[in-house]
Amino acid sequence: MNTLPVPLKKLIDFFEKLPAIGPKTAKRLGFYLLRMPQQDLEEAAQNLLNLKKLVRKCTLCFNLSENEICSICSDSKRDKSQVTVVEDVLDLLSFETGNQYTGVYHVLHGRIDPLNYIGPDDIYIFQLLERIKIAKEEIQEVILATNPNMEGEATAMYIRNKIAEIPQTTCKITRLAYGLPIGADLEFADYMTLQKAIEGRRSF
Amino acid sequence: MNTLPVPLKKLIDFFEKLPAIGPKTAKRLGFYLLRMPQQDLEEAAQNLLNLKKLVRKCTLCFNLSENEICSICSDSKRDKSQVTVVEDVLDLLSFETGNQYTGVYHVLHGRIDPLNYIGPDDIYIFQLLERIKIAKEEIQEVILATNPNMEGEATAMYIRNKIAEIPQTTCKITRLAYGLPIGADLEFADYMTLQKAIEGRRSF
Repeated sequence: MNTLPVPLKKLIDFFEKLPAIGPKTAKRLGFYLLRMPQQDLEEAAQNLLNLKKLVRKCTLCFNLSENEICSICSDSKRDKSQVTVVEDVLDLLSFETGNQYTGVYHVLHGRIDPLNYIGPDDIYIFQLLERIKIAKEEIQEVILATNPNMEGEATAMYIRNKIAEIPQTTCKITRLAYGLPIGADLEFADYMTLQKAIEGRRSF
Repeated sequence: MNTLPVPLKKLIDFFEKLPAIGPKTAKRLGFYLLRMPQQDLEEAAQNLLNLKKLVRKCTLCFNLSENEICSICSDSKRDKSQVTVVEDVLDLLSFETGNQYTGVYHVLHGRIDPLNYIGPDDIYIFQLLERIKIAKEEIQEVILATNPNMEGEATAMYIRNKIAEIPQTTCKITRLAYGLPIGADLEFADYMTLQKAIEGRRSF
């Protein structure tokens, strides 16, 4: 590896840091880049530079966005009375691929996971509760779409209890149906399964 | 996907173009980048920009290098009398990981593969022959280390015949021993297997 030119070696090291990429794959990717058009590399470099500068969180739902309010929250065709609570943006994207869900979202950016020292204050639960308090009349249903595993269930139960504590809330709280196999990861579910899960959602 | 910020979406598209990365992995990688330090992203961007500008081929052996002559060819401790001919730089790296081979290389950057319209003139065979002609007295052995499959064998045989045509060449032509499993890819061989193959090389 010492014989490799510096930029190539450093890019291979960079790829190795990424998840699911081992040393051999990192090398292949590095050499593949050499065969790509310079324009593609320049565009990728520009996007890498801008990524963290331009991407921020929507102040309403905490979805990733370039603007203060994300494209979903600012879409007038979206049903603002229905809020689906997801653990992260990849889960939101799984819902969006179907183009069938018309409500809005709230992205927690994590789950309650005491073993990894993640408590309710480390994710956007407080902001969800505030949002429900402020838009008490508008929000009619909160769909808890956290992952169907232990941490996701705990997060859903915590949120359900916290919403119930808000005085004068009438919004329905639902949970995705167990059409999803237990222990799975929402991110990898196909949309039909997610659709079944939305249809069969139960009172929580 | 339309809901994603542009730089993120474009980086995900970029990852999808790379080999062995599917749409789901590309998304994961994109989101992972958001959690990396800005400094790492900036460094990677810089390396992407410089990659094709700074990386060129060694004028002697066609290994990748930042200088006119690569670090192996310019290393005085390397035995210039022994030239190992490999299909590409990843194969060279497989040899180098062992730190046991002390000769130099010649990188063909491909193999003769008529089905994919790659003939002898499309890879650096002519340059290898020229190199042998010029350094007739210095080069004592050419080790043909092309892959042990049909294209690699054809390439090795072609090169052997062409070297034999050079007047007054006395250099030995050898081929890696079949310690390597037939049909395999040199790039993925462990170094011990490669070492056995170097030791057991036979007259060709």
